[in-house]
This record gives sequence, structure tokens and C-alpha cells, in this order.
Amino acid sequence: MTVARIALVPGDGIGSEVVAQGRKVLDAVLPGIEATEYDLGAARYHRTGEVLPESVLQELAGYDGILLGAVGDPSVPPGVLERGLLLKLRFAFQQYVNLRPSRLWPGTSGPLGSVKPGEIDFVVVREGTEGLYAGAGGTMHTNTPAEVATEESLNTRHGVERVIRDAFARAGKRERRKVTMVHKTNVLTHAGGLWARTFAEVAREFPDIATDYQHVDAAAMFLVTQPQRYDVIVTDNLFGDILTDIAAAVTGGIGLAASGCINPERDFPSMFEPVHGSAPDIAGQGVADPVAAVLSVALLLDHLGHPEQARRVEHAVAVELSSRTPGQALRTDEVGDRLAAHASAA
Amino acid sequence: MTVARIALVPGDGIGSEVVAQGRKVLDAVLPGIEATEYDLGAARYHRTGEVLPESVLQELAGYDGILLGAVGDPSVPPGVLERGLLLKLRFAFQQYVNLRPSRLWPGTSGPLGSVKPGEIDFVVVREGTEGLYAGAGGTMHTNTPAEVATEESLNTRHGVERVIRDAFARAGKRERRKVTMVHKTNVLTHAGGLWARTFAEVAREFPDIATDYQHVDAAAMFLVTQPQRYDVIVTDNLFGDILTDIAAAVTGGIGLAASGCINPERDFPSMFEPVHGSAPDIAGQGVADPVAAVLSVALLLDHLGHPEQARRVEHAVAVELSSRTPGQALRTDEVGDRLAAHASAA
Ligand SMILES: CC(C)[C@H](C(=O)O)[C@@H](O)C(=O)O
Ligand SMILES: CC(C)[C@H](C(=O)O)[C@@H](O)C(=O)O
Repeated sequence: MTVARIALVPGDGIGSEVVAQGRKVLDAVLPGIEATEYDLGAARYHRTGEVLPESVLQELAGYDGILLGAVGDPSVPPGVLERGLLLKLRFAFQQYVNLRPSRLWPGTSGPLGSVKPGEIDFVVVREGTEGLYAGAGGTMHTNTPAEVATEESLNTRHGVERVIRDAFARAGKRERRKVTMVHKTNVLTHAGGLWARTFAEVAREFPDIATDYQHVDAAAMFLVTQPQRYDVIVTDNLFGDILTDIAAAVTGGIGLAASGCINPERDFPSMFEPVHGSAPDIAGQGVADPVAAVLSVALLLDHLGHPEQARRVEHAVAVELSSRTPGQALRTDEVGDRLAAHASAA
Repeated sequence: MTVARIALVPGDGIGSEVVAQGRKVLDAVLPGIEATEYDLGAARYHRTGEVLPESVLQELAGYDGILLGAVGDPSVPPGVLERGLLLKLRFAFQQYVNLRPSRLWPGTSGPLGSVKPGEIDFVVVREGTEGLYAGAGGTMHTNTPAEVATEESLNTRHGVERVIRDAFARAGKRERRKVTMVHKTNVLTHAGGLWARTFAEVAREFPDIATDYQHVDAAAMFLVTQPQRYDVIVTDNLFGDILTDIAAAVTGGIGLAASGCINPERDFPSMFEPVHGSAPDIAGQGVADPVAAVLSVALLLDHLGHPEQARRVEHAVAVELSSRTPGQALRTDEVGDRLAAHASAA
């Protein structure tokens, strides 16, 4: 029996290596997933000149979820794959909740001397369909001394309100029940004003959730000096991009950071991807850490309505990470095997 | 004999407390400074409704330098003082080099377990007059469900080239001779393209300076995991705002971070200010750490052409920081006295 139909997009570099482990773990905890692989990324672009044909976009729209590895290669000009594939999917499928959990896992140690495992446990709800990612901008007098280049951040009440409401709803299911909004209202007064007013209004609907506001520069600092203080952070697309990499850094690196690009209404498929990139320098060597991809599978399982299986995958990751010794060499497929075994046994 | 005429702008909160110590140290190492105090900030705004009268701007233009404490108070709507005073001065006086050095000082320890004092020593050259700080943007259908808010990042070849050239010139005077440009060329392709092309062209004029590029999210991560790798970072206004707060965090906090808003051509006065804010919660208690303000005085001395005195101030800070014990209570004026004494003795 098919429990769900998902699309696999391994992408570039280490993408295929880590997606293979994600699939292994997925099959181990939830038999009956029907997975179809899509060849998208740098290789296809070089072969066909196309990044994401309309027909493929239409097909992808029919799946229950997408598991993506990584996209990007130095041989492709900056922006082509990012805009043409990754952001295209996030925007076309209205994945307005870009969910990025951060935990300092038991048995691991991050770079911060004074923070103990278990003390960091927050989630960033990054807006995924607006802001500076809209692609509005251009250049004039290009390549002359008079050149002007613009980038426009576009923000709507519609877009801001739905992601803030999602953040409050998530906070309501967590222990500390607190939402911190991050923006730069003292400089970006127009967009910041819209965010601040919307945040205040939505907050009134959730009287039992605590609220807080920080400027993005202060938040970037506190993520390093006091990451323990955060529960749910809601922020705009670009700020979320930067803050989640800091969050990954303080919780042991990008090798462990998972993300979900979620369409909560399920009008379109949601997409799950490790935060790390394609890492061309280590691609093909079988040494990439698949944990971030496997944790993205846990987010996929949650989204598909299988929380019990999702917790088993997280448990497997906890077991794996506690058993690692510093400096130990990793083999991607062996880690995948161990995670699948732990997850089935759990 | 008057060696230089400077304007003091204590501003709000702890601003006046720390600026007083900055002046003390300045007088100790360079007698003959003529300093005039300007009452600008929240109190003046509430009293007069004005932030920065044109006549005061004209007067300030006549000084050799400005020493600013901090600006901002919760009683003033976000943006009013920031845009009306701080950014107004940066823009009007063409302070396009926003210089922010980061060091892990001897005798101190930052939050990163594995980094030793002396190992972090880089400087961020943040563009100070363009980008999203231009104030271009607005709202439409304001306060309705159809509201749209925009913020526009404006970038010129003129503005990008001059700050990149300054970064290369600074790198040429440093030991490691390396400039890392930080942007987000894979998403902000228009502004990112202008920055990348200009960087490549200016780099050709400095064949003996090594170059590197990182996306802002990656840089945010590496500032936490490998801050040792950086020498000179050049980046846009908003990215620089965020990255320098991370830099402050990994080098022991915002209490030590100095900055100079510099007009290298000296067409207008440059301005020196601690990166920290007005900290209304501790204002008036005499417990603010004046080190960031005093290090800003060192940058001022460099700019005024007194490098020997600047080094003496830095030496005094090194002595002060090495003699501190963790958890020790600070008195702002006592720290100022000690710094002035160390700097005169050096
Ligand atoms: C690759 C890039 C377009 C992407 C982003 O900026 O969103 C990445 O950094 C991420 O965080 O998923
Ligand atoms: C107060 C604010 C306008 C300012 C900025 O964003 O530049 C501050 O954060 C800084 O870094 O100097």
C-alpha cells in the first residue's frame, strides 16, 4: 500500500549521497512510501540549458512532499539554480513557512564553551516567499562608472500575517510558549512597520504566548552569547537566512541543520532539505554527513502526519551523535545504515 | 595650542557616561583638543520636536571629528533618531567607510571554547552610505489587509567602488593582506553582480592582496566557527551591521566594540562611536563599560594623524582588560581613570 508519494531531488554535489541516506531511513520507519527521483540541478542545466521545465513543475505539484539534497555548482553563474529551482519551488508552491529547528543535541558540543547539550532548543520560522527574495530589482548604466543596482524587498500584509500566525501556533505547542520577532524596524521603517503592526495584532489572538522583539543585529549577537533564550523566532526571508546559519554554527555546524519549506494549507507540496549546500569539494567521496538530510526526513514525516515515526528518526540521530568521538571519520552510507537501524529498533 | 577641534555628541542613555571617559583618555594622551558638546538625542527631540536642525548640521561640518556616545530611547518611535541623527550624519558627511575592528584581546576570553586571545584580529569595512539604509521605500494600502511595504536597496558603482578600494588599501597595510567580500550574489543578483564585478576590477589594481568571497549566511557561520580566518571583510551596509554584531559577540561582547564612520577624503568630519546602544536599563548608574568608547577614541586619534597616541590608548585597554577578573563589578569613571593613567604612562 502506498502511504505517500514523494519526489526526490538529489541535486548537485553531495546532494545525492545524503538524499540516499534520507530515503533509507524513511523506508525503515515508514514502509510504503513511493518515491520518484527527479534529475534537476547543475548537470541537467549544462545538458539541456533548462533549470526547471514547466512540465516538471506541474508534475512536482502532484506529490505529497519533496526531499531535496542540495543545489548549486561553481560552474553555473550565481543565481541561476538558486532562483530558477530552489526559490522557484518555494515561491510556486507557496512554501511560506521556512522552518529551521536548532538543538544542541545530547552527546554533542558546540563551539560555545558555556552552553551544555539540551540547553539550546529553538526553531526559526523564516518567511519563505517575500522580502528581498522576490527578485525585484535591476541595474542601469550597467558596466559603466554610472551604474546603479537595486534590490527591492516586497512585503505584504497577507504574507507577513500568515507566517506570524504560524509562528504563534507553533509556539502554542511548545513548552516555553514564546515568540521573538526579529527585524530592523529602526532602519527599515516601512517593512519593519508592517511586520511590527502585524505582529502586535496577531499576538492579541494568542494571549497566552509571550512575545519579544529584537533588531536583527542584536539577535545575531544574542544567538552567539545567549542562544538558550530563544523558543520560536519569526523573521523575514533574508534575516532568517542569516540567523539560521548562526543557529547552525552554535549547535555544532551546518552538517546537522535541517529545514522544511512548508505550505501549511497543503495546497501544494512542502519541501524538505538540509541547510548545507552541495559541498563540491567533498562530493563523490562518501564522507558527507547525512544527519541534516535525515533530520529533514523527520520534518517530512511530521508534515505527512507521522509524528511517531518522526520522533524515532530524531531518536536515531540522538543515538548516533552520542556515540561519535571527536575527529572520527564518517562514511555517509555507514551513518545512513546505523540511523536506519536505530530508527527501526526504536 | 589647539591640536584639533572635535564635537562631542553624548546622546542618550549611557552615551554621556562613556563619552566622558573617552574624553578623559583623549585629553590624557593628546593635550590641546578643543571639544564642544552638542545636546542631540531623545531629550532634545522631546523638548524641541527637532532631531538635527540644519544649523547644527552645518556647525558639525566644521569639526575635525565627532565623538558620539549612543542614540536611541524607547520613548521615541523606531527610526526617528536613527534616521534623523545617526544615519543623517553618516550620509550627509559621506562617511562611506564604517570601520569596525574585532580583536580577541589578551587577557580576555570570548564565548568560543577553542579560540585563544590574539587569534582573532580582523576589521570589517562596512559600506556606510548606500544599500537598504538609503531610506527608499514606502507602504501602500497602509493598515488594511491589502497593505504592501517596500524597502529598496540602492547601490552605485561610485559608492561600491570607493569602499572596496578603501578595504584593499587597508589590507595592504596589514600583515595577512587579504580581503574577503561578503554579499548574497546568488539571490541579490543585481546588487550582488555590481559588487562582484567591482570587487574583481579593483582587485586587479592590488595584485599582492589575496581575495575571497563568501555569501553572507556562510560568513555569519564562519564568524562563529572560524573567526581566525578573516583579515579584512568588505560588505554592504546591512550585512555589515549584522556581521559586526556577530564579530562583537565572538570577541567578548558589544561592550568592547568600537567603530569609526569615516570620510577618508576628509571633505567632512568623520564620526567615532561605540557599537553598543544607549542601554536605557543601566543608564545613570555609572556601571557601563567605557572600553568601546575609548577604543573609538583610538580610531579617532588614528584618523586625526596621531597613531602613536592611538597605540597608547589601545595599550591601556589591553592592560585594563588583562587585569579584570570574571564577574568583577565595573564603575564607569574608575575604568576611565585607570585607562587615562595607563595611556599617559605608556
Ligand atoms: C541557496 C540559497 C538560495 C538559500 C537561501 O538563501 O535561502 C540557502 O542559503 C538556504 O538558506 O536555503
Ligand atoms: C542604530 C542603528 C541605526 C545602527 C545601524 O543599523 O547602523 C546600529 O545598529 C549600528 O550598527 O551602528
